[in-house]
Amino acid sequence: MGLAAPSLSVLNAKEIEQIKDASMDILQHTGVKMDYASARDVLRARGAKVEGEIVFFPPRLVQEAVMSAPRGFRLYARNPAKNVSIGDGNPVFVPGYGAPFITSVDGAKRKAVYEDFVQLVRLAGASSNMDITGGVLVEPNDIPEKHRHQQMLYACLANSDKPFMGSATGAEHARDSLAMAATLFEDDGDRPSQPVMITLINSLSPLMYDARMAGALMEYAAAGQPLIIASLGMAGSTMPATLASVLSVQNAEVLAGITLAQVVREGTPVVYGSASSITEMRYGSLSIGAPEGAWIIAAAAQIAHSYGLPCRAGGSLTDSKLPDAQAASESMMNMLTAGLAGVDVILHAAGILESYVSMSLEKFVLDDEACSAVKRILRGGDVNKDTLAVGLIHDIGPGGEFLSAEHTYGHFRSEFWQSPLAERGSYDQWRLEGTRTALVRAQIRLQQILESYQAPPLPKKVEKRLRESAAR
Amino acid sequence: MGLAAPSLSVLNAKEIEQIKDASMDILQHTGVKMDYASARDVLRARGAKVEGEIVFFPPRLVQEAVMSAPRGFRLYARNPAKNVSIGDGNPVFVPGYGAPFITSVDGAKRKAVYEDFVQLVRLAGASSNMDITGGVLVEPNDIPEKHRHQQMLYACLANSDKPFMGSATGAEHARDSLAMAATLFEDDGDRPSQPVMITLINSLSPLMYDARMAGALMEYAAAGQPLIIASLGMAGSTMPATLASVLSVQNAEVLAGITLAQVVREGTPVVYGSASSITEMRYGSLSIGAPEGAWIIAAAAQIAHSYGLPCRAGGSLTDSKLPDAQAASESMMNMLTAGLAGVDVILHAAGILESYVSMSLEKFVLDDEACSAVKRILRGGDVNKDTLAVGLIHDIGPGGEFLSAEHTYGHFRSEFWQSPLAERGSYDQWRLEGTRTALVRAQIRLQQILESYQAPPLPKKVEKRLRESAAR
Repeated sequence: MGLAAPSLSVLNAKEIEQIKDASMDILQHTGVKMDYASARDVLRARGAKVEGEIVFFPPRLVQEAVMSAPRGFRLYARNPAKNVSIGDGNPVFVPGYGAPFITSVDGAKRKAVYEDFVQLVRLAGASSNMDITGGVLVEPNDIPEKHRHQQMLYACLANSDKPFMGSATGAEHARDSLAMAATLFEDDGDRPSQPVMITLINSLSPLMYDARMAGALMEYAAAGQPLIIASLGMAGSTMPATLASVLSVQNAEVLAGITLAQVVREGTPVVYGSASSITEMRYGSLSIGAPEGAWIIAAAAQIAHSYGLPCRAGGSLTDSKLPDAQAASESMMNMLTAGLAGVDVILHAAGILESYVSMSLEKFVLDDEACSAVKRILRGGDVNKDTLAVGLIHDIGPGGEFLSAEHTYGHFRSEFWQSPLAERGSYDQWRLEGTRTALVRAQIRLQQILESYQAPPLPKKVEKRLRESAAR
Repeated sequence: MGLAAPSLSVLNAKEIEQIKDASMDILQHTGVKMDYASARDVLRARGAKVEGEIVFFPPRLVQEAVMSAPRGFRLYARNPAKNVSIGDGNPVFVPGYGAPFITSVDGAKRKAVYEDFVQLVRLAGASSNMDITGGVLVEPNDIPEKHRHQQMLYACLANSDKPFMGSATGAEHARDSLAMAATLFEDDGDRPSQPVMITLINSLSPLMYDARMAGALMEYAAAGQPLIIASLGMAGSTMPATLASVLSVQNAEVLAGITLAQVVREGTPVVYGSASSITEMRYGSLSIGAPEGAWIIAAAAQIAHSYGLPCRAGGSLTDSKLPDAQAASESMMNMLTAGLAGVDVILHAAGILESYVSMSLEKFVLDDEACSAVKRILRGGDVNKDTLAVGLIHDIGPGGEFLSAEHTYGHFRSEFWQSPLAERGSYDQWRLEGTRTALVRAQIRLQQILESYQAPPLPKKVEKRLRESAAR
């Protein structure tokens, strides 16, 4: 780690305050619709005004909630070497989430099935960049919805020893997830004894939470399990067209969820989630590859950090329908912005395509490499007497060479990033090897990873109990 | 322009001082080899110690030179609407420079010819993102070297009305370029009366300037024409493997060139140029798509700005051999880093491939779009009462929609970037239209641009005189 972590700012202090003040105004006077009676009840008990399903948040309640949330926290993995620290200045990468389709390299698309899900879990498990296995890595459409959450969780727990995500589809599914996590860690009772999973809770823009999300939120908060509380507004349709307004409405939604989590249990670990972007006005559709979305990532990170909260934003986000140059460019734009902005959790870090609609296994491999490159940029270069090497430069002098210097051999392995995919060799050799594009190389690497990956074995008894939960 | 321009830092103030101190040590005690007697003479006359061809720079001479260089300046175009301001906080984009080859979309490569050069000039002229036409947009290998610089300049002046670059291949070619620029602007004498061109001067790493570069530098400085003075060190071969050292050796080289320019003529407009990256140790070759190179871009921008100098770094840099996903990802990584770091001049902004070895017209079109997206990120979003729209949010309320709001129609055109190339429509429509990748769309757009571009006409007399100069 360099002495100075990168720092990116796109808003000044006054602009941040204006946005936050607007959010407080919205929370207090416009309110947030909560389609879940228990949520309204606990908020009313803490002084919120409730009219029908709309909750009006007193500023002090929101401020107290923000204060009670930790600046960072740890997720415990079944393999302690894979514990994850969130909020320590290093980004945590999590694969794509929630897509119903799978796209092949030629752009053909089909409904995803359980086998795709398992392959994605194995890719996440094999990656040295993905820190969390993921949650809904893709929708397994061949599994009945009733059991889907348990089957997905089973695949995650059986095929990877990294921390994972819980089901966000209502209180009951949350309890099922908590119970399976307790089984994995062989904890007594129906919930894990430590933070081991993180769950993605989304508001419905503008300014609503449905019963499923609010229900899951309350269950996980009560169990002390961390939450990402995120807003995905579309400037120009579900939010105003101006980016400043998107930031303040998004902020209001996220603060409402955070307040609910803290009211349920003070100190619940929460991550401030920003996923808002713009509406492509020609089609009325969400665009996640838009540069406005990248700017929102950087701005939201500043707002989250100004509250002392870790932030989730960004990812390898693209509107492209296949892993082409548009996908690569948009994905890097969003990923690098998130990295430089100090985003703490980068969901959708690998595989996502077509504005969250589809996943590509080959793009997963390409994005994984991009995550690694961004990590290298963030690490930077140490500045000290040894790395400045003024004496060496003096000894070698004008016109000399450093290739054979001992200093070079002592440093280049740690200083230079190793890329498994990037082509940097001679043109002639590349032609001889068949003029392979990055996508072709990714296809080859994908097969190698899937063939060689060994799932870290579970204790037999745990494996059996998890399998039973999943088949229930 | 948003109220707050993005600001990225990767070095802290102490690290910047350490690097600058190391550079001063190198300049004073190791020295810079100048293979050009006139350069050594003018520096000796100002107090530099000279031993053989090596010039040792007293710190005060360097500091005075840095102080005498302007923070920013203007380049005058033959079309005043296309004047360019350098150092005002907005990046100036310039196409790829110096590649000897042209690559087609399938990765086939051939020597570039004059017709390629003209096509690239026309692309630069047509682009709404390229601010300067360019210089050696590609090497026209079918033109004898002796006349190449004049033929290239003629193509630039006849096909585009933007500012341009001068020849850097020695004093004589510089004088030829100055004379043609004077002809273009119908100035008396053999040089233009205002700053109208900018020329790329490169050191030879480590710590040398050859006669051609030093000679051109001195001619342009004497004529008051702006210079980019750049270093392209390769960590691990022409410079040490540690990034801190690369920054300090590069800084020493650039400061040596800037000092020479200021000694020739105080106040010469100069741009601090950083092009250093790493050596791919498997092949001993330059890698410009490496993440270490992106970090160097951001760090160099901080160092240049700490001297109060405009900076040149970055570009759509890639090692890939064709415009594939690697090219798109690496290009965006370097372009976005340069944009966020506040780099003032972004050379190689479009078209470059294969570590500066080749150009792709299709990649030019793709990169041009990426430049436009980066500009949109930099513009950000204004924060004020109108853009925050708290009243509107209150009126529409939880669960409402903003698509039909007057506020949306009043803002979305200016707030949302329009992309000519990005695919954001429906999947089915995209399949119906032939499953076009971004590269295929770029090919189509390339043809449209080349077919529709109208070169801005020159006065007949000027055109004739320029043509005569080029044919001399």
